[in-house]
Amino acid sequence: MARLVMKFGGTSVANIERIRNVARHVKREVEAGHQVAVVVSAMSGKTNELVGWCKEASPLYDPAEYDAVVASGEQVTSGLLAVALNEIGIPARSWQGWQVPIRTDDAHGAARILDVDGARLGAALDSGQVAVLAGFQGIHEESGRITTLGRGGSDTSAVAVAAALKAERCDIYTDVDGVYTTDPRVVSKARRLEKVAFEEMLEMASLGAKVLQVRSVELAMVHNVRTFVRSSLIDPDAPEAHVVEKAGTLICDEEEIMASQMESQVVTGIAFAKDEAQISIRGVEDKPGIAASVFIPLADAHINVDMIVQTTSADGFTDITFTLPTADFERAKAVLEKLRETIKFRELQGDTEVTKVSVIGIGMRSHAGVASRAFGALAAKGINIRAITTSEIKVSFLIDSEYTELAVRTLHSLYGLDS
Amino acid sequence: MARLVMKFGGTSVANIERIRNVARHVKREVEAGHQVAVVVSAMSGKTNELVGWCKEASPLYDPAEYDAVVASGEQVTSGLLAVALNEIGIPARSWQGWQVPIRTDDAHGAARILDVDGARLGAALDSGQVAVLAGFQGIHEESGRITTLGRGGSDTSAVAVAAALKAERCDIYTDVDGVYTTDPRVVSKARRLEKVAFEEMLEMASLGAKVLQVRSVELAMVHNVRTFVRSSLIDPDAPEAHVVEKAGTLICDEEEIMASQMESQVVTGIAFAKDEAQISIRGVEDKPGIAASVFIPLADAHINVDMIVQTTSADGFTDITFTLPTADFERAKAVLEKLRETIKFRELQGDTEVTKVSVIGIGMRSHAGVASRAFGALAAKGINIRAITTSEIKVSFLIDSEYTELAVRTLHSLYGLDS
Repeated sequence: MARLVMKFGGTSVANIERIRNVARHVKREVEAGHQVAVVVSAMSGKTNELVGWCKEASPLYDPAEYDAVVASGEQVTSGLLAVALNEIGIPARSWQGWQVPIRTDDAHGAARILDVDGARLGAALDSGQVAVLAGFQGIHEESGRITTLGRGGSDTSAVAVAAALKAERCDIYTDVDGVYTTDPRVVSKARRLEKVAFEEMLEMASLGAKVLQVRSVELAMVHNVRTFVRSSLIDPDAPEAHVVEKAGTLICDEEEIMASQMESQVVTGIAFAKDEAQISIRGVEDKPGIAASVFIPLADAHINVDMIVQTTSADGFTDITFTLPTADFERAKAVLEKLRETIKFRELQGDTEVTKVSVIGIGMRSHAGVASRAFGALAAKGINIRAITTSEIKVSFLIDSEYTELAVRTLHSLYGLDS
Repeated sequence: MARLVMKFGGTSVANIERIRNVARHVKREVEAGHQVAVVVSAMSGKTNELVGWCKEASPLYDPAEYDAVVASGEQVTSGLLAVALNEIGIPARSWQGWQVPIRTDDAHGAARILDVDGARLGAALDSGQVAVLAGFQGIHEESGRITTLGRGGSDTSAVAVAAALKAERCDIYTDVDGVYTTDPRVVSKARRLEKVAFEEMLEMASLGAKVLQVRSVELAMVHNVRTFVRSSLIDPDAPEAHVVEKAGTLICDEEEIMASQMESQVVTGIAFAKDEAQISIRGVEDKPGIAASVFIPLADAHINVDMIVQTTSADGFTDITFTLPTADFERAKAVLEKLRETIKFRELQGDTEVTKVSVIGIGMRSHAGVASRAFGALAAKGINIRAITTSEIKVSFLIDSEYTELAVRTLHSLYGLDS
């Protein structure tokens, strides 16, 4: 009998009426013949309340106590969903992280899952019981203390549990009905994708962030957990709720996508990130080790640099341009100003009004010319490209922010993504 | 180094400001040289909210899930108090029932403590750490599931932990400053008692119920845990907070009381219970087994009968009078009406406007005539005594409810309890 993991977030369990609705989703899958494990978040707003209390009690709170306090939110919803399931005739019991156990390291507040023990959980499923797991939490076994996985950790819990149970699928119920070719608020012709490869989903993080935590996608990729993003808002008994393809987006490995398509799509989606900033260091003497002397101090300051472009002019001087999160912009400039004496650059320029637009698709591996077609299309619209980076399945363009929507719409049409 | 258990109820931990106040109480005792374990309830109102959600999800909720949900309330306050203690420089950590472990049976919702493992807890105290325990909860080890002890269970947790840790004292912080000779709202001259014997406290349950759960007193008696009822409302740093005798009432064994008094008090307090009802079965044929034919059916209906008086008249007929909780009055009458054919009584009478007034004191063991003095004093006030029962340390009178206050004041003066 196939096993299924279903994950519901905070808005889906915000009150008893919604918890009852979740129970009906679970009932549908049980009646369809699945063994079901459900992973739940805390009621929406609850985690913030608990975190607020910790901070009020002490700005320098012990993260182990924070975990004990905050993990209580999922404990409540796991118990309540088990009650609601029993009420409609579906045998169920709640499982706290320490009961499974879901073993983690001791990085309280942002712990990493080491191992999910599937033995007792699997036996419960085999006995015909639905397992309702408190998401977001685990236990550090040496100390015997509760840990939490950090914000959005319930997605990660769900994928880890699915891997341990060798589940056929991990369904992530959310307030959108899947992953789109791009943001539908920017491009009205954006289409919901039926399938996305794990690698693509990681690159589409800026689109997918609201849908799925990046860490959970990494974990799904490593353990090959087919992860299905679907809407929690549809009627649990509606016909389309029964047909998986119509209900959401499946994140799976490349082979499964290839097998289902006669001819693979070259481009899967267009992502964009507006919270990028650009810094250029101009007129640096072009000698070996100059890049290291810029980027090592930035790394030491925990500033993540993304795109890097270096252009050398004939006069022996070079310009170094890179992007970074806008939040780190001022701090990075301060770090570089201190280096003016050692690096001896002519000018430090910066701009926060820039956007990174990315064209993503596993089909790009076998298709040349994807980037060059974009150059032409963007140029035709008068959009200047400040920098370009490419990976095997992605091309990113740094452009002026005011052209974001125009660029996204242009590329969306160019690669045949319009519905 | 002497160990101390301190217990704080829901109003004492209702918000962060009050939790900080609790932390100051704990700090005072740590600085006085104690090793301290603290037991906390959930924030006031929180348990009711959680119970309400369970009932809303299903009127027939699984009590094991109820326990998982409801136990989260104490989890939150234990973590927050540990944070607040660390904030003021007192090393502390939270302990959930399953972490200690506090082992219970599997009577979910009203579990009984089987054993408190004092090993890890004791080691933590020896290392100089304050242990903050979530009250009201434990674990059923065979199933690995969370249990709760039933309403007011945190008092029981505190006493059980004190017994396991061989604590010098278990301090119960509450919204009154101790146990009084009688209800101060009825007798303005009521005095706070410095010491009460365990046996007396059990008999004074009707006075003490608001102060201390009966089960916790039984447990304290069995394990000889000196239990100190004191106010959570005083300033933690006030001079009287440091002097135990001035701050509350000590519940302890008889020997300790005897040792501290030159001449023992005969009567310790006057208790009264207004929620009693009386039923009389008149004109029953006086033959062997007649009492059994009345009381066995009542016991089968789970009706607890308290005082029983049987009076036989010369004509071979008997009257049976007994008291019971007012809540069971109508049900008991219905049970007895069904027996009219078999028991063949002449008349079934009942009255809910009755009160049981009790005179309590371990000194009564060695002093005769306590009851007879009361007869005279009550008669002088025109108070009719409907029934009397006595035990080694108690005399109870059943009277008309309208005379309650007069009777209590009369007895309070009679036995020299007025301040």
